[in-house]
Amino acid sequence: MIEDKNPKRTPLSELGEFKLIEHLTAHFEINQKSTVKGIGDDAAVLNFEKKNVVISTDLLMEGVHFDLSYVPLKHLGYKAIMVNLSDIYAMNAIATQVTVSIAVSNRFPLEALEELYAGITTAAKLYNIDVVGGDTTSSTSGLVISITAIGKVEKDNKVLRSGAKPNDLLVVSGDIGGAYMGLQVLEREKEVFKVNPNNQPDLSMYSYIIERQLKPEARKDIVELLNQLEVKPTSMIDISDGLSSEIIHLCKQSKVGVDIYENKIPLDPQVISTCEEFNIDSTTIALNGGEDYELLMTISQEDFPKIKGNPNLTVIGYMTEEDRGMHLVTRAEEKIPIIAKGWNALNNPS
Amino acid sequence: MIEDKNPKRTPLSELGEFKLIEHLTAHFEINQKSTVKGIGDDAAVLNFEKKNVVISTDLLMEGVHFDLSYVPLKHLGYKAIMVNLSDIYAMNAIATQVTVSIAVSNRFPLEALEELYAGITTAAKLYNIDVVGGDTTSSTSGLVISITAIGKVEKDNKVLRSGAKPNDLLVVSGDIGGAYMGLQVLEREKEVFKVNPNNQPDLSMYSYIIERQLKPEARKDIVELLNQLEVKPTSMIDISDGLSSEIIHLCKQSKVGVDIYENKIPLDPQVISTCEEFNIDSTTIALNGGEDYELLMTISQEDFPKIKGNPNLTVIGYMTEEDRGMHLVTRAEEKIPIIAKGWNALNNPS
Repeated sequence: MIEDKNPKRTPLSELGEFKLIEHLTAHFEINQKSTVKGIGDDAAVLNFEKKNVVISTDLLMEGVHFDLSYVPLKHLGYKAIMVNLSDIYAMNAIATQVTVSIAVSNRFPLEALEELYAGITTAAKLYNIDVVGGDTTSSTSGLVISITAIGKVEKDNKVLRSGAKPNDLLVVSGDIGGAYMGLQVLEREKEVFKVNPNNQPDLSMYSYIIERQLKPEARKDIVELLNQLEVKPTSMIDISDGLSSEIIHLCKQSKVGVDIYENKIPLDPQVISTCEEFNIDSTTIALNGGEDYELLMTISQEDFPKIKGNPNLTVIGYMTEEDRGMHLVTRAEEKIPIIAKGWNALNNPS
Repeated sequence: MIEDKNPKRTPLSELGEFKLIEHLTAHFEINQKSTVKGIGDDAAVLNFEKKNVVISTDLLMEGVHFDLSYVPLKHLGYKAIMVNLSDIYAMNAIATQVTVSIAVSNRFPLEALEELYAGITTAAKLYNIDVVGGDTTSSTSGLVISITAIGKVEKDNKVLRSGAKPNDLLVVSGDIGGAYMGLQVLEREKEVFKVNPNNQPDLSMYSYIIERQLKPEARKDIVELLNQLEVKPTSMIDISDGLSSEIIHLCKQSKVGVDIYENKIPLDPQVISTCEEFNIDSTTIALNGGEDYELLMTISQEDFPKIKGNPNLTVIGYMTEEDRGMHLVTRAEEKIPIIAKGWNALNNPS
């Protein structure tokens, strides 16, 4: 690929806030029937008839949640939407709208924001959500992205974290640990780049895990699949901080215990090989690496025949009485207590 | 007031993200019937039956929107909520919920966040809104506050910016220019303080305008008043950026012109006297000073008898055909075109 050494750089100050918002949001289409009024008034107006409305919000900070030295802005925009939609799907709901607020310093040219919004637009189209509002302002330091996602669900279909019962099966979608190992590879390449900026690394053997890190997909398809299979999970959460941390949330809020089987945890071969290369235990990564945005749920045993053999869903354990505690059953059949070591934004240096 | 020279400072790292969220949000009460599930799941669940849902979001950045050297954190928390509720009221809607996300650097002790949340809690109680979600994370630099406000309105009662008609009256609630002049006083005192930190200024003569700046109130009461008076404005917007800027929004979106009368613009005596002291024209401040969070609306002439003489509402002009343009009619009966010079976050230095 030939890089454009002189990309166009339009200073944000040329536009001003209102023109900037107009410019960035002009191409957002409204497709949801529930959007009565999108961008352009004091507030968006939505109409969900008698459905429940679900709302979730996330704040992404440069230097804490992302590193612009290896995250392309387009991917960042896409991922910012995914992170939020994932919370909506974890309610067994369908995402319908988002609001997008950004704060940028003047070091960003307009073209950089266009890249960011291109990623947001792609995500919105692919997941059929309307961008209905937001705020654009300046930052004295890094880039800040705040997204609020809105979804709808029939009253009786919503799934909370608190409904798991003893003997329910613990089920995870897809595979886990990839996003964390992708981050490890990117961090290593960043260090190599610092020493030798002309190095062109071959990352093709890490393509899956890098994509898991840079361009994750929220599991809308799993919510649709569960609906087709007529399986309503008894509890559900998305895996953003790490499997162990999310399991603890489900157990605490449902007042149950859990036994997870190490040999059942779904890992992609690239996760296993990269863990070997980095000399890290893959189970540790699966339990504590975050950002996979898979769905972790519990289902009633009677629903097991409906999901049996489905390549998208893996049973990794079962829920127990609360006083039995939370354990990982290792390949050696040892029982180890589960402790949250998930990614913790507040322990990051600042 | 005797200042505590050794206030308690608990490092945030002692708690970690989940404990911090738990600690800060533990005391939030749920009072709205429309809140099905508040904080504690992947998303909040709301139920508005057949009403329209309105949603607005704002991002407040330290160093751009607020200066912690003279803004107490409790006031900041309160104001952050007001700024967002104001957008909901500007839709003629009733605010019901907010989500609150904050990013903080480790230089903030827990006690500082408790102050911020105390302000948020006070605002939530006074305005009867539920805090139903949010995000707490670290920042590599300043404090970031992102709030999303949610409200409800009967389908036929919502008021957009686009409904003004020629001959409608332009009406403003309360008085304007105070918040901007309060900021001028605070900025001046900050400079004095830099030179002489032991100086104890007497700010009592500026108490109204300083309160307008530090602790504004969103005009929920005006929405209730309009409802009682059975007046449905034809268009409405809140005054956050400045009167001229908001008038232009109403005119452009409603495709009308406007004549505003300089001598009708409601100013508090403290605004007038402080403008004289600072040697600034008070009409310029009224037109371009932002952050008053009053409501600017247009009403049909036939509704005039209902609002006539009401001390909360002032008619300041009337709408015209679009090709007549937007003008200020001065005391000398000159017609001056209205240009937006409102506060523009993106022109701030960074």
